[in-house]
Amino acid sequence: MKAEIIAVGTELLLGQVVNTNATFLSEELAVLGIEVYYHTVVGDNPVRLDELLTQAQDRSDLIVLCGGLGPTDDDLTKDTVAAHIHHSLIQDEQALEQLNDYFSFSKNKMTENNLRQTLMIEGGRAIQNPAGLAVGTLVTENDTTYLLLPGPPNELKPMFKKNARPLLEELFPQKEELLSRVLRFYGIGESQLVTELKELIDHQSNPTIAPYAKPNEVTLRLTAKVADHGEGELLLDQLEAKILSQVGDYFYGYGDENSLVEVTVEQLKKAGKTVSAAESLTAGLFQSTLGDVPGVSEVFKGGFVTYSEQTKEAFLGIDPILLEKEGVVSEFCAIAMAEQARILSGADFAVSFTGVAGPDELEGHPAGTVWIGLAEKGKPTIAELQHFTRDRRYIRRSAVMKGLDMVRRAVDK
Amino acid sequence: MKAEIIAVGTELLLGQVVNTNATFLSEELAVLGIEVYYHTVVGDNPVRLDELLTQAQDRSDLIVLCGGLGPTDDDLTKDTVAAHIHHSLIQDEQALEQLNDYFSFSKNKMTENNLRQTLMIEGGRAIQNPAGLAVGTLVTENDTTYLLLPGPPNELKPMFKKNARPLLEELFPQKEELLSRVLRFYGIGESQLVTELKELIDHQSNPTIAPYAKPNEVTLRLTAKVADHGEGELLLDQLEAKILSQVGDYFYGYGDENSLVEVTVEQLKKAGKTVSAAESLTAGLFQSTLGDVPGVSEVFKGGFVTYSEQTKEAFLGIDPILLEKEGVVSEFCAIAMAEQARILSGADFAVSFTGVAGPDELEGHPAGTVWIGLAEKGKPTIAELQHFTRDRRYIRRSAVMKGLDMVRRAVDK
Repeated sequence: MKAEIIAVGTELLLGQVVNTNATFLSEELAVLGIEVYYHTVVGDNPVRLDELLTQAQDRSDLIVLCGGLGPTDDDLTKDTVAAHIHHSLIQDEQALEQLNDYFSFSKNKMTENNLRQTLMIEGGRAIQNPAGLAVGTLVTENDTTYLLLPGPPNELKPMFKKNARPLLEELFPQKEELLSRVLRFYGIGESQLVTELKELIDHQSNPTIAPYAKPNEVTLRLTAKVADHGEGELLLDQLEAKILSQVGDYFYGYGDENSLVEVTVEQLKKAGKTVSAAESLTAGLFQSTLGDVPGVSEVFKGGFVTYSEQTKEAFLGIDPILLEKEGVVSEFCAIAMAEQARILSGADFAVSFTGVAGPDELEGHPAGTVWIGLAEKGKPTIAELQHFTRDRRYIRRSAVMKGLDMVRRAVDK
Repeated sequence: MKAEIIAVGTELLLGQVVNTNATFLSEELAVLGIEVYYHTVVGDNPVRLDELLTQAQDRSDLIVLCGGLGPTDDDLTKDTVAAHIHHSLIQDEQALEQLNDYFSFSKNKMTENNLRQTLMIEGGRAIQNPAGLAVGTLVTENDTTYLLLPGPPNELKPMFKKNARPLLEELFPQKEELLSRVLRFYGIGESQLVTELKELIDHQSNPTIAPYAKPNEVTLRLTAKVADHGEGELLLDQLEAKILSQVGDYFYGYGDENSLVEVTVEQLKKAGKTVSAAESLTAGLFQSTLGDVPGVSEVFKGGFVTYSEQTKEAFLGIDPILLEKEGVVSEFCAIAMAEQARILSGADFAVSFTGVAGPDELEGHPAGTVWIGLAEKGKPTIAELQHFTRDRRYIRRSAVMKGLDMVRRAVDK
């Protein structure tokens, strides 16, 4: 099974956009046991794309194309592939229905060119787009399979996972099963994790261990290649137990599509507890991150953004004289904010964030100095001093992750 | 001047690394007036790389290769290119000296394979590496020029800028300058924008017009190719004026690195006004987005996250009986939230968000139904009903963008 990925778009050749789709698709295809031999980027030019298809069909069983399914005249991928394999373009009824629904609901004006997005290649299978209007196609001609996906990553990714991957699994079944399990860690860096697990990583064979660093967390993907499902699960269980015996304190959950906020909300739900917040440097990012989780209203009712000294006094009733004396980058301020937010909201827990997002220093403290408070009903309120690095965005995001971890550990107790 | 970029490395084909080098090099080459027609990624495989070189030499004047200059056995780019053009590899004395200095300073043990990094292709010019040990080469054979650079971006970038770019400028002197300008639009979709500008886009030549859709906004990049800088600016001014005469109502700012929130904060600063918010479905995302902008404390002091009916009453003092009667997905609720947030915070403006983030409907309204309120000192408070689509995250982000646009327009008046 040889595959290649062709991204179509002049914006890629001009260096305006990074080809993250090729990276995503390569990772996904590797899991399906499909080997990728080439990535190519070509501009919105049907002649060069057609030449490339001629080469590709000779060397690959599967050609994944991304980009060029949109409404404008330079979106030529569908037309070019259809002409190349001598198929025509036909209307996909489900995509048309989705398009009509979108325009009738959003009240936006539908222009004629939008209809181009609902066309698919005749003889293929339509790939519906859960996050946009352009429909894709999976079509096989002369032993080569063509998969057409849209260019925007926020459309391509859910579309591939939900609608294209199952069709590929059906079309190219694997002889050996690939079982994988993702372990998620917070509070330990990739290099430290790899050093702690050096012995296991150096002697890995089956299952394999692949560490991956994400902003503020690290994941380990354990992958076993087995003939039998039960045997695979057993191998993964054994390896996981070894890993957790060494770095279990940083482990918080499983799965590629999971996150620290989802685990935290889940634990609050299980415990029947609620959380509130008072945010200074994070300016609502903690609460907004909670808001990303569907059904969070069960555990989150609201909170405060107190960016200035005035609002810390006006919204939370913090004594301005003490605040002036202790400073806003202080344990006092973090504890007062968390306690007041908890009392005013009536929640079981409240987190507070106060410190320096940067780029400038504040009260003599460098950017990245952050106090995080945690108030819990019936317990003494605590605050932790953190020193985060990098830029303003990263410092604020790092603070939110630490706040979530503090809540998760408190609920867990 | 046709160019292409070949990245060599199996890690790229496995999806472990994103090909940011191609993006960087494309942008740099565009500025030099060198047009890039293809990006290709191939694994650490000399046979496939050699085949690719055969294709590339027929279609390109310049082939930039990145990756495969390192010390290990799978670093084969130098050997493969040298063999392809029938040149040999020779020792570069400067690189050897740098290597010896490095190992004597760092006290690390130098292994034999490190010497491979100091070899260059005979007949070419060495490209010294200011951030690593692998030397590059620029070599021309049969009218095709080959530029070999290392894979790690932190080596490739300074090496290109400092040592490769001057050689390319010398080899391919530019007759014409490339001037570009980015216009940013909010409130109009890509398909509608290109329909409105169809006449201009169909007849574009110099400057060119390139539309690009981002989540919730569209940008147009205007690019002029000219012998004279002043002439270029004039061409861009004329085209911009034509574009804005048609779709100027949606235009909000310039530049690739700009955003609606930055423009909004800038306008508030200029006007000496402040803004607050009360957020239900957005749960702090509007305020957190403001918080991303350095120096926002001048115009933003704080606000409220009122996710439940209780907190709308407790934090904002909204009448629970009226709220029960009108519902939270209502004009009444949006107006009450915005007004109370403005009064309690003492700000000049306050925005409110209340509605359905989904996935489930609320009070009989489907996901995406959102009321956005805007209170302004001394003016009647207004609220706009919006219907956003897609998933929970997108709906919340769309609402924030609309809220920013409402503030920007109100300040602008």
